[in-house]
Amino acid sequence: MATADVRALLFDVFGTVVDWRGSVIRTGSALSERTGVAVDWPAFADRWRREGYLAPIGRIVAGDEAWREVDALLQAQFDVLASEAGFLDLPAEELAPLRLVWHHLDPWPDAVDGLARLRRSYVVAPLSNGGFAMLMAMAKRAGLPWDCIISTELFRAYKPDLAAYRGGAQLLGLPPDAVMLVAAHTGDLRAAQRAGLHAAYVPRPLEWGESAPAPEPSDTEFDLVAGDFGALADLLGC
Amino acid sequence: MATADVRALLFDVFGTVVDWRGSVIRTGSALSERTGVAVDWPAFADRWRREGYLAPIGRIVAGDEAWREVDALLQAQFDVLASEAGFLDLPAEELAPLRLVWHHLDPWPDAVDGLARLRRSYVVAPLSNGGFAMLMAMAKRAGLPWDCIISTELFRAYKPDLAAYRGGAQLLGLPPDAVMLVAAHTGDLRAAQRAGLHAAYVPRPLEWGESAPAPEPSDTEFDLVAGDFGALADLLGC
Repeated sequence: MATADVRALLFDVFGTVVDWRGSVIRTGSALSERTGVAVDWPAFADRWRREGYLAPIGRIVAGDEAWREVDALLQAQFDVLASEAGFLDLPAEELAPLRLVWHHLDPWPDAVDGLARLRRSYVVAPLSNGGFAMLMAMAKRAGLPWDCIISTELFRAYKPDLAAYRGGAQLLGLPPDAVMLVAAHTGDLRAAQRAGLHAAYVPRPLEWGESAPAPEPSDTEFDLVAGDFGALADLLGC
Repeated sequence: MATADVRALLFDVFGTVVDWRGSVIRTGSALSERTGVAVDWPAFADRWRREGYLAPIGRIVAGDEAWREVDALLQAQFDVLASEAGFLDLPAEELAPLRLVWHHLDPWPDAVDGLARLRRSYVVAPLSNGGFAMLMAMAKRAGLPWDCIISTELFRAYKPDLAAYRGGAQLLGLPPDAVMLVAAHTGDLRAAQRAGLHAAYVPRPLEWGESAPAPEPSDTEFDLVAGDFGALADLLGC
C-alpha cells in the first residue's frame, strides 16, 4: 500500500471528529429550557457554521481579508445571530455555554475509541482551523487522546491553504508523504493531497443533519475510505 | 493562596521532567557495549548539554546569534564531541540512538504518575526549549500525559526570553497569572515570574549527577517548593 510510510495521522476536527451541529443544538435547547427563549436551533447552528466560520475563513484563504483568530470570527457571528433571534440581552453567564460551545463539542460515538486504537501505531493529532486553546479544551473534556494539538493558528493560515498542511508535517518533523489527513470533507482532502500528504476519507452523513444531502462519494481518489474511525483502524491494521 | 486562579501548569522538561544526563549515559554505555568504544559518558553528557545546548541558547537569547532549531544546535555539537572521542566514523545506524537520544529521554520516576494526578485539575503541558517533534516523541515513548505540546520553537524565542512564557500563556488562552511554571531551575522560574506567571520550584538534586553541587535553596521566592511531582500534587490538593 502506498501509505506504508505514513507515520502520523492528522485529523480534521469539526464534522470529522466532533458533531458540531448536534452539540450546538443540544446546548441551545438547554438554553431554551432554562430561559424560555424560542429559537430554531438547527437553523441557528447551520448559519453559525456557514456565516461565522466557513464564509470568513473562505475570504481569508482567498486573500480578501486579513487573518483573524477563529474565536473572533465565531463570536462576531454569534452576536449577530443571537441579536436577530432576540436573546443577546440575556445575562452573559447564561449565554456563556452556547457562546463557547465550540470549545466543548461532543465527539462522534466512534471517535475516542478509534483514536485510541490508531494512536498505538501512529502519531495522532488534530489539524484543524479551530484555535489551539479551543482544540485543547475540547480534547480535555471529551477525552480525545491526541499526541499533541496542531491548530492552523500556529501557521496563521487556514485550511485549505496549502501552508497549513505543510506546516503540520514540518512541525512533526516529517516529510508530507509520511502524513495522512483524515477528514469528512473532500475539499480538505484534495488540498492535503496537493500539499503532498496522503488522504483518508471518513464521510460523516449526519454532519448537516438527517435531511442533508449525502456526502460526496469517492472511488479511487483517496488512499483510504472508511465508515468511521474504527473501520479506519481496521484498514490500517491497528 | 495566591495560586488559586492558576488553571494551567507548564513544565520545564530537561532536568525537571526527564533525566537527560542519565539517559545520555545509559545510551552511550550501550553504544560502548555494542562497539567497544571507550568514552567517559558522564563527561560527554555534561559537555553536550553545556556546549551544544546551554551555551548556544544563551547566545541566541542574548541576541548574539540568530534563532536556530534546537536539533541543529545539539547535532552540531554531537559531531564535535563524537569526533574528539574518536567514534564519529561508526555507521550512522550505530550512532542514531545516541545522536537522537534527546527525543527519547527517560522521565524521573515520579513524573508520569505526578503529571497524571495534576492533569485531573489543571491543564498540563511542557514549556520547553526542546523542539516540538522532540517533545512529542519523548512524551509518546515515556507516556507523559500532556494535554498539548508547547515548544518554544512555536515562538522562535528560547527561554528565558520573556516572549516564550508569554507565548505559552497566550496559546492557552489564559492571562499569565493563570499559569504556573514548574521547573528545577531558579533562573527559569525567575524569568517566568518576570513575565507574570506563577512559579513552582521542584529541585532535582541528581540532574548533574551525585557529585554535583546541591540545587539552589529557596525560601519564599516562589509560590511553591516541592520535592517531586507527587509532592506538588499534594500541595495543590490533586
